[in-house]
Amino acid sequence: MGVLILNRNQIKQVIDMRQVIERVRGAYQLKSQGKTVIWPLVNYEFQDEHAAMDIRSGFIKGEQLHGLKMLNNFPENREKGLPPFNGVMMVYDSNTGIPIGILDASYITCMRTGAAGALGVDALARKDAASLMLLGAGKQAPFQIAATLLLRPAIRTVYITDPVNFGQAQAFAASIKEQLSADFGIDAAGVSFIAEESLAKAVSQSDAIITVTPSRKPLIRKEWLKPGTHLSCLGSDMETKQEIESAIFTGARVFADDIPQCIRVGEMEIPLQQGAFKKEDIAGEIGDLLSGSVTGRENDTQTTIFDATGLYILDLVAAKVAIAKAKETGIGIEVDM
Amino acid sequence: MGVLILNRNQIKQVIDMRQVIERVRGAYQLKSQGKTVIWPLVNYEFQDEHAAMDIRSGFIKGEQLHGLKMLNNFPENREKGLPPFNGVMMVYDSNTGIPIGILDASYITCMRTGAAGALGVDALARKDAASLMLLGAGKQAPFQIAATLLLRPAIRTVYITDPVNFGQAQAFAASIKEQLSADFGIDAAGVSFIAEESLAKAVSQSDAIITVTPSRKPLIRKEWLKPGTHLSCLGSDMETKQEIESAIFTGARVFADDIPQCIRVGEMEIPLQQGAFKKEDIAGEIGDLLSGSVTGRENDTQTTIFDATGLYILDLVAAKVAIAKAKETGIGIEVDM
Repeated sequence: MGVLILNRNQIKQVIDMRQVIERVRGAYQLKSQGKTVIWPLVNYEFQDEHAAMDIRSGFIKGEQLHGLKMLNNFPENREKGLPPFNGVMMVYDSNTGIPIGILDASYITCMRTGAAGALGVDALARKDAASLMLLGAGKQAPFQIAATLLLRPAIRTVYITDPVNFGQAQAFAASIKEQLSADFGIDAAGVSFIAEESLAKAVSQSDAIITVTPSRKPLIRKEWLKPGTHLSCLGSDMETKQEIESAIFTGARVFADDIPQCIRVGEMEIPLQQGAFKKEDIAGEIGDLLSGSVTGRENDTQTTIFDATGLYILDLVAAKVAIAKAKETGIGIEVDM
Repeated sequence: MGVLILNRNQIKQVIDMRQVIERVRGAYQLKSQGKTVIWPLVNYEFQDEHAAMDIRSGFIKGEQLHGLKMLNNFPENREKGLPPFNGVMMVYDSNTGIPIGILDASYITCMRTGAAGALGVDALARKDAASLMLLGAGKQAPFQIAATLLLRPAIRTVYITDPVNFGQAQAFAASIKEQLSADFGIDAAGVSFIAEESLAKAVSQSDAIITVTPSRKPLIRKEWLKPGTHLSCLGSDMETKQEIESAIFTGARVFADDIPQCIRVGEMEIPLQQGAFKKEDIAGEIGDLLSGSVTGRENDTQTTIFDATGLYILDLVAAKVAIAKAKETGIGIEVDM
């Protein structure tokens, strides 16, 4: 049987953010209908290597796809001139258990994570939201911005902040328009991208915030937020990670991508432990909101939060888009396993 | 970077049972020294498809290898003319998190499982053991026999039993000598292979027994065993599986491949629940025995049990053998991930 192998560059050629957004929306909705299974997350920190790995896996009924990915985050690779972020995903046909695709996982992860953060913004930010802030000017930032601008073309200002490297935020702000055009076909001529050194200032001017750092201490303070801000929190995906102050959860309308996983490793992990809010206060999962079974934002002054820890089912649907297009266009190689 | 891809046939060409046995022995010993990490097993049953999958993963320090495999067991594939057993494994360099190999997992799983069962026999069966019984004449049986004959050349009689298909046991007994020669380079001219329909009779004539069925009810009764028999139990690797009567554990000297995993999904799961023996009665892990830190068999009349649920670290070391040989001989393809 032929298994399609796609590397990062090939995936980049065949995957489209617009399609990924709609497939991710569909996957969240299927989850809300009980048609998906999220298998337990396995993660590990390599102490000597200051590195981490995680294995995410799952099954989508109906689509009849299952599989897994292993992601490796080895930041010290940078000093060795090697990519810091590596991973491979495997896609199986759930009718037969036969592998159909083996793909580089890094680009697909970025694409589906961008779609996830943006779907949170689109579903929960105020209708008149005109400003977005990115916390973290790393590899995830362009994908978050691309997907958010596609869903919310009314956004006119994007603040780029980076808690550890303001120079990176400046370089990012200077180059992102070109990248949006080249990688995503997005014309952002009418959008201002502003690198802002003061986190307090950027937060206080933003209608929507997306957090994509690996921080282990809260960076965004409640007192900086203006009323009615939405936060899509994507950085916290392992125990003890936290990007926003626990108190922000108090009184906020909070959605999770997967409630048990968010409780365990998400942005809400520490606020729950500290009693800043309770499990019963979780409004629902994002899939319930996108399916219309749970109400989202209730008024224009409420703070809303989307806690996204990452679900492998999103990778599966994004991979499906890439595999279909690659087969259509003859990209990638098929190997006989 | 180039990732080596090896399919089942290529692995079969480059892997050698003698090397795998020694590497598996080494992996068990490293585990006993605390130099390995077994990550949590993820498994799932596909109800509609009457199928199952499991994900095993782990890390070997020193060897600096980590990775995972996904195995899919879809028995109904046989009716579709498709292989019932599929899987892929991934091997990563733990210094960099970069993938080095993507391999068909099915042949490596068989090889390392054969080595595991045989190491249990070799370490625990009486020194004068001359007869072996296989419970289950399926795909695992040739690997168990090959590895056991390599470690215990004094074995003269091998009983083949199969609880669901005696015809398969007969066909197996008729062809195994040829397969041992062709696939493993083993001359078994002096060994008698006997298909035995009566399980009671085969058990009562065997010094060592290896169980490799997916049974969910105990098949081997305590009353059939002669004094001093060793049992390597490999079939039970998921909740509720059981191949031998719980009472056999009472008074036996019991080793596990990994104590927590065996308690959860191994042959000992149900005996422990039923109170036939207690956690404190587990003598140790097989790695402790192979390292010499725990005594094995204490006398010639004691029943000994090796409960092996399967450890991904064994696949890793077996894959290392295959990857090294494949690179040396130019087998397989390298893809740029």
